[in-house]
Amino acid sequence: MGVSFTLGQLAEALGATLEGDRHRVVRGVASLEQAGPEHVSFVTASRYVKSAVQSGAAALVVGREVTGLPQALLRVDSTQTALIALLRLFHPERPVTAGVHATAVVETGARIDSSASVGAGAVVEAGAVVGARSRVGALCFVGAGAVLADDVVLHPRAVVHAGVVVGHRVTVHSGAVLGADGFGYAFDGTAHRKIPQVGGLRIADDVEIGANSTIDRATVGDTVIGRGSKIDNLVQVGHNCEVGEDVILVAQVGISGSCTIGNRAILAGQVGIADHVRVGEGAILTAQTGVPSDVEAGQVMSGTPCRPATLTRRIWAAETMLPELVRKVRALEKRVRELEENPGD
Amino acid sequence: MGVSFTLGQLAEALGATLEGDRHRVVRGVASLEQAGPEHVSFVTASRYVKSAVQSGAAALVVGREVTGLPQALLRVDSTQTALIALLRLFHPERPVTAGVHATAVVETGARIDSSASVGAGAVVEAGAVVGARSRVGALCFVGAGAVLADDVVLHPRAVVHAGVVVGHRVTVHSGAVLGADGFGYAFDGTAHRKIPQVGGLRIADDVEIGANSTIDRATVGDTVIGRGSKIDNLVQVGHNCEVGEDVILVAQVGISGSCTIGNRAILAGQVGIADHVRVGEGAILTAQTGVPSDVEAGQVMSGTPCRPATLTRRIWAAETMLPELVRKVRALEKRVRELEENPGD
Amino acid sequence: MGVSFTLGQLAEALGATLEGDRHRVVRGVASLEQAGPEHVSFVTASRYVKSAVQSGAAALVVGREVTGLPQALLRVDSTQTALIALLRLFHPERPVTAGVHATAVVETGARIDSSASVGAGAVVEAGAVVGARSRVGALCFVGAGAVLADDVVLHPRAVVHAGVVVGHRVTVHSGAVLGADGFGYAFDGTAHRKIPQVGGLRIADDVEIGANSTIDRATVGDTVIGRGSKIDNLVQVGHNCEVGEDVILVAQVGISGSCTIGNRAILAGQVGIADHVRVGEGAILTAQTGVPSDVEAGQVMSGTPCRPATLTRRIWAAETMLPELVRKVRALEKRVRELEENPGD
Repeated sequence: MGVSFTLGQLAEALGATLEGDRHRVVRGVASLEQAGPEHVSFVTASRYVKSAVQSGAAALVVGREVTGLPQALLRVDSTQTALIALLRLFHPERPVTAGVHATAVVETGARIDSSASVGAGAVVEAGAVVGARSRVGALCFVGAGAVLADDVVLHPRAVVHAGVVVGHRVTVHSGAVLGADGFGYAFDGTAHRKIPQVGGLRIADDVEIGANSTIDRATVGDTVIGRGSKIDNLVQVGHNCEVGEDVILVAQVGISGSCTIGNRAILAGQVGIADHVRVGEGAILTAQTGVPSDVEAGQVMSGTPCRPATLTRRIWAAETMLPELVRKVRALEKRVRELEENPGD
Repeated sequence: MGVSFTLGQLAEALGATLEGDRHRVVRGVASLEQAGPEHVSFVTASRYVKSAVQSGAAALVVGREVTGLPQALLRVDSTQTALIALLRLFHPERPVTAGVHATAVVETGARIDSSASVGAGAVVEAGAVVGARSRVGALCFVGAGAVLADDVVLHPRAVVHAGVVVGHRVTVHSGAVLGADGFGYAFDGTAHRKIPQVGGLRIADDVEIGANSTIDRATVGDTVIGRGSKIDNLVQVGHNCEVGEDVILVAQVGISGSCTIGNRAILAGQVGIADHVRVGEGAILTAQTGVPSDVEAGQVMSGTPCRPATLTRRIWAAETMLPELVRKVRALEKRVRELEENPGD
Repeated sequence: MGVSFTLGQLAEALGATLEGDRHRVVRGVASLEQAGPEHVSFVTASRYVKSAVQSGAAALVVGREVTGLPQALLRVDSTQTALIALLRLFHPERPVTAGVHATAVVETGARIDSSASVGAGAVVEAGAVVGARSRVGALCFVGAGAVLADDVVLHPRAVVHAGVVVGHRVTVHSGAVLGADGFGYAFDGTAHRKIPQVGGLRIADDVEIGANSTIDRATVGDTVIGRGSKIDNLVQVGHNCEVGEDVILVAQVGISGSCTIGNRAILAGQVGIADHVRVGEGAILTAQTGVPSDVEAGQVMSGTPCRPATLTRRIWAAETMLPELVRKVRALEKRVRELEENPGD
């Protein structure tokens, strides 16, 4: 909306080497396909160079080595990092006015930092703490004694239950539920009796949690999400899990109770993990993988039940031959029977 | 509740040919199994004729060709279309009073059409537009600059984030989150850095979105849901996806970022699609299918990884023989070895 | 927080036989790994005895037969039942003050029992009933004519739609949506026309429903969840399903429309069930199982498509040999061809 920069200004802001007209003005960022003469676009991987040639963009953010492009170029060491800066230039975060909205309900004994904000219709119970510059969005619920550290963002309608501890710079998207009861029952021969879920949930610094995801509190002790981990939408993390640092949980992943997920592990979409499983550091589980037992550090696993991805790929390739294989074995049996019956024939 | 019709009135309203007593009164619609002498029921497919014979219903809505039923019959060309009309007759939509509830928070600069309604506790931010006859349910959130066209229904506690554009006659069910950030990070060697998600989300006319589903805004440009598409509960649509027209996404489907789903495609429950995949027009993906790469128009695909459904069915049939096949091959190897060792024996 | 008991008091409260110092004081319950000298811990299965030996707990709740543990012991008949009682001793449920919060919106004609509570920002529409001691959490929505029986707990931000009937002692977690429209359309050649979802939803006594789960109302008649069933987070139950008694639905299970799930069936995480399927009493479906057709009572099923778990395990074992099997069959074909070509050789 009215934001514009010259290519010279962009080069300076991004630490880029400019090849092109310093004075040319651009007014927005767009994808290679949608960019016009007022846009800057970006080539974050060499496989996109071909579409870049045909892009109508005025200028492109590219790596140091890219050649053959007709547009003005902003050369950088890391196109991903530059893209982040570029988007923030054109789309600065909206400033938030500190203070508690008149319609919010803040119970006596809750402590809201004077630089924090609490949105319309939000509810903050007694004993809860909202740290410096943190934002509790409209219609959020923050339960008794929950702690939001500094620079936390709860998007509208997030729920943080009683006693949950949320670290610095954590972002929680709309509809996420942090600290609901874990799923624990004991069948006593007559009925499933609920095991009280009296433990906690601790979210470390720099975590992001997607829309409508659910992370349960522990039975006793704490469920833990480690520093820097990023969780997509509609993900389920069961009670007493310990998710490590810089872990990636893609949409619709489900992790049963008491699992340990190692640092920097990546669980792709719809992966399911059985309870009490340990996934090692840096392990990668491809989409829809089902994990019944421990996965060692650094392994890349696929399939249900999961196996090393290279083996799974070979199994998948062989599967397409399986109907034919059944036929072949039948034919072989017949031929061998004939050979057996007519040995010297 | 007190609504009743004679079969004659129903025949007229549905454009049906009545075989039975015009003056008989019915007071509700029920399934074949649950219908009593005060009910009208329906036979929407020939496989239900057998249970229809035993139904206690006073009358049945049936196709032109059905025979052998003892009840009064309302014959129509399309039983499905007639069923829709029949249900609306007995269950007219509740009228909604226009106006903004006293407890709703409508920020200055939001434009609410005088025929629209905003429910209790709802929050509508500055610059948002709510069109003619649209209904913002209780406890909904409509972000800054979001646009709801005419006759939109947001059920209680839906979230429409800033700038999202929602077409005419769109229905959004409770808990759905439209326009949360896409899941985009760049790992810089130290941490996952968030790529600002500054794009938009456009929902075309006549779309329906289920409870607790999540549709993310684009990184740049727009995520798009095409006209007439129907999305069930707990579905995830990633950033920058383009979902076509009249597409069906059944519950718990997950679509990764930057996918294109062709018009009239059907994705059954729990299907997962990898990122940047194109699913062609009219393709059908059966339940739980995992789609790693493009699917051509009109294809019916099953399994993970997905293959043409006919092949997958043959693989599944052969799989049940697989343990036996391993045994057979071992036996064959032994017999061939014996033949080789005793050639002329 | 300040709650403490002597082991003698605990023995009495739990009906346990104490082996140890009656006067020793403990101040909390912790897991074997995290317990210190102020804690009591528990050994709920014999496989945990090994870690129990090394636990720093002052005392352990154990079964009658466990031996070789150095800590004070509280011997009980059922460790699970004792654990429930133990957790409730140290963590009594927070008392709830009866009454309607000043910011709640209760429409005229809703009946709230004088012992019930309605939280901040909650909305209860006309004709709804909230029974004795029931609690409607903050920001919940209870639609017109919905009925909550006695001792119901709606956690903050749950949604109970119009006309839904909720039994005694039902617990609904945050974000759950009870009674949204089922997913029903008829394609008329031009568009998917919505089939009005005018039926109901009945939740029987003692049911628990997890965070962000969705249970749809019926097209006509009722969707039913039977007494004592426990539903985890992010579960989808489609319209017109009949879920039996004491059923377990683990996180992210998806049940299509018109299914019948027998009493005491267990559906593990991410299981998917096709529409109109009957799952028999006591059947067990392991995680990620895909169920295209009926499952008999008592069966244990795995895989997609599901098969008896014993067969599926054998198939999974054989699959790892499949690439090798393809190679072996090729080799066999060559050898048999040679035998055929050189019969008496």
